[in-house]
Amino acid sequence: MCGGRFRELISTLNAELISAGTELLLGEIVDTNAAYVSQKLAEIGVDVYYRHTVGDNLGRLAEVLRHAFQRSDVVIITGGLGPTQDDITREAIAEATSRPLFRSPEAVATLRAFFAARGRVPTDSNFRQADLPQGGVHLHNSCGTAPGIRLEHEQGVVFALPGPPVELKPMFENAVIPDLLDALGARHERLHTRTLLLCDIGESNVADILGDIIGEQTDPTIALYASPAQVRVRMATKAAEEQTARACLAETERLIRERLGEHVWGVDEDTMEAAIGELLRQARASLAVAESCTGGLFASRITDVPGSSDYFRGCVVAYHNEIKMHVLGVPESILQQHGAVSEQCAEAMVQGVRSALGADYGVATTGIAGPGGGTDEKPVGLVYVGVGDANGTHVESFNWPGSRAQFKSRVTQIALNLLRKRIIGTV
Amino acid sequence: MCGGRFRELISTLNAELISAGTELLLGEIVDTNAAYVSQKLAEIGVDVYYRHTVGDNLGRLAEVLRHAFQRSDVVIITGGLGPTQDDITREAIAEATSRPLFRSPEAVATLRAFFAARGRVPTDSNFRQADLPQGGVHLHNSCGTAPGIRLEHEQGVVFALPGPPVELKPMFENAVIPDLLDALGARHERLHTRTLLLCDIGESNVADILGDIIGEQTDPTIALYASPAQVRVRMATKAAEEQTARACLAETERLIRERLGEHVWGVDEDTMEAAIGELLRQARASLAVAESCTGGLFASRITDVPGSSDYFRGCVVAYHNEIKMHVLGVPESILQQHGAVSEQCAEAMVQGVRSALGADYGVATTGIAGPGGGTDEKPVGLVYVGVGDANGTHVESFNWPGSRAQFKSRVTQIALNLLRKRIIGTV
Repeated sequence: MCGGRFRELISTLNAELISAGTELLLGEIVDTNAAYVSQKLAEIGVDVYYRHTVGDNLGRLAEVLRHAFQRSDVVIITGGLGPTQDDITREAIAEATSRPLFRSPEAVATLRAFFAARGRVPTDSNFRQADLPQGGVHLHNSCGTAPGIRLEHEQGVVFALPGPPVELKPMFENAVIPDLLDALGARHERLHTRTLLLCDIGESNVADILGDIIGEQTDPTIALYASPAQVRVRMATKAAEEQTARACLAETERLIRERLGEHVWGVDEDTMEAAIGELLRQARASLAVAESCTGGLFASRITDVPGSSDYFRGCVVAYHNEIKMHVLGVPESILQQHGAVSEQCAEAMVQGVRSALGADYGVATTGIAGPGGGTDEKPVGLVYVGVGDANGTHVESFNWPGSRAQFKSRVTQIALNLLRKRIIGTV
Repeated sequence: MCGGRFRELISTLNAELISAGTELLLGEIVDTNAAYVSQKLAEIGVDVYYRHTVGDNLGRLAEVLRHAFQRSDVVIITGGLGPTQDDITREAIAEATSRPLFRSPEAVATLRAFFAARGRVPTDSNFRQADLPQGGVHLHNSCGTAPGIRLEHEQGVVFALPGPPVELKPMFENAVIPDLLDALGARHERLHTRTLLLCDIGESNVADILGDIIGEQTDPTIALYASPAQVRVRMATKAAEEQTARACLAETERLIRERLGEHVWGVDEDTMEAAIGELLRQARASLAVAESCTGGLFASRITDVPGSSDYFRGCVVAYHNEIKMHVLGVPESILQQHGAVSEQCAEAMVQGVRSALGADYGVATTGIAGPGGGTDEKPVGLVYVGVGDANGTHVESFNWPGSRAQFKSRVTQIALNLLRKRIIGTV
């Protein structure tokens, strides 16, 4: 860690963010990196006052960089580090800081090794990614070929990070955050948050029940966010000491849980699929899934969790009724009398998949995702979700019109929640 | 429509966008308005060179506005028009244009009527929404209480629009777009685009092969975008006449297809899963899938397509080896001799799922998604993807270290592509 002007800035830091890319200016992609970086900076107490988006234009990018250097300690630029001629972040930093670019032999070697390991030959343009403004250092990219850049200059420090979120996030967390924390020192105030994850209740109900607390309380602040079949209650406070923050958040959490505790299923970054995995692991129980209308999304969520092979036996996506009968053993009479979208079919699918795949718990979804296939009696949006074990089956039905993607996502979330409740014994 | 400096600017216009709101700077919400407005402006041929996000701070917002007025004909600011003390867009415009604010009697009357109709009484702060910089006019809000603002001033025109997307979108489309089109006149040029979707080739290879065209050509412009296992080549041209644009794009498309035609599998908004659906429907053929490492994501992509029940029989997610044996009929000897992650197992899964689910085409994925489970011989990232039909099976292997989510996404994309190639007869 070197010791220029940037090192002397202790206890407060402000940062300015620049997103580079004509595709952003044209609105072809939504800039999720900007929100991600902003949020992480807020968490460690770095203030962000300005954020910009500029296209792949050297003059304009250098101009915005120069302006940012004048007023902000830290400038973070994302995007424009790829191998093509559009990727001009390296050149723009060199120009805005009046430094020459040179090609790093280490980075060239790393690129050669990366391609060799994959049996490919790098091209001339690939080596542009090894270019670096004088005085800068490269940041390791664990998920791609474009290294990041860190450059301390006369007015502060600039970080250049790759645009793809999967490359940006690890680099930001492994290289940039520790660097900024180091510069801030131990005594500055950070943002501490605690988020309660609620299910089986709507946002406006939560707002009514917590109305007085949200209205009167200034520390921690409380904000509500709604996402499919879930509400998040986020508490935030600033403190230098972890302990001070924890006490403040714990007191408010107690108040909220007093009123809404039965709906709180997790906190912070918990996912329902990981929570279920933990419950299954504790119970030494296994899971099998029979999906119709969710088409594999439930199984995909379950298998997003590392180590899910410990408890997940597998899934049958039974799109065609013959699969429901022949693989899952749903009796033909149920399909004829009640149809595939019925409580009876959901129940038979739950027990059928438990038996076919040899699992303790079974889950089934069957519904009409649309846009076609609806009738007056069974409209688009109707769905039966079943969960069961050796003691029986519990089926609930819902009706959610919406886009096909929304429908799959909501039904999957609801099915995860029902499974969770079955394992803990509340349904 | 009045006739100041703004009215004289014909045939080209450039716009600068400002999003106001501390919640945006903190990353608590993603700025989807910015992408929406950018896209709509690009469509009508208004150039956007700069976009900014500023918090609820009068000094900083006015500073950014002043800077934008100097270089852009049109400035569009979103957010900060609500009734609370945080909402300072009105004041910032007044300050940046050196105009006093006055309270519009018409807007006060509209607000009173709005609240009266709902049996509510407006508070003092509600009336702040009736304030307007001198010389400005209000824009009707069909979905909320905050009117928008349009102000022509010495350096151009500024539009202030409400932050909630449901209020912003109708106001933008009903008031701002027609106004800009009117200023541009009939003969102005709009942006026309055509995007070619490529597979089985990397971004840097495409950049090399098209290097001379990309470098020399200014109309249409050509840009490359990479996404998992796919490259997009986007051509864009500006023209007043649809026909002129089409001819220009077609000529460049011909040049690109001459060099890369074998890699082009679709255009514009095509998805691989929809393209496959179309091919299967034409061939009157059905599909079954056996997934191990992709965990249901392949089936979920296939079932994202409306009407996929016409050709999709179903899927078996065979996470546990017993499912591979008992449901898919993979011989135990293959699992013992070669392991589940092997060419032999992929082949047996393809033919096993075709037979178990009664389908014409079969697809299988088996690999090590990680982070655990890798060995020296079979590292995390190794995967076998198989596709087959009554004539046999084709298996390819890949090795892609990365996050679990990346791995699932890339393998799914590759498997979709292999299936597509099997159906059209190229593998």
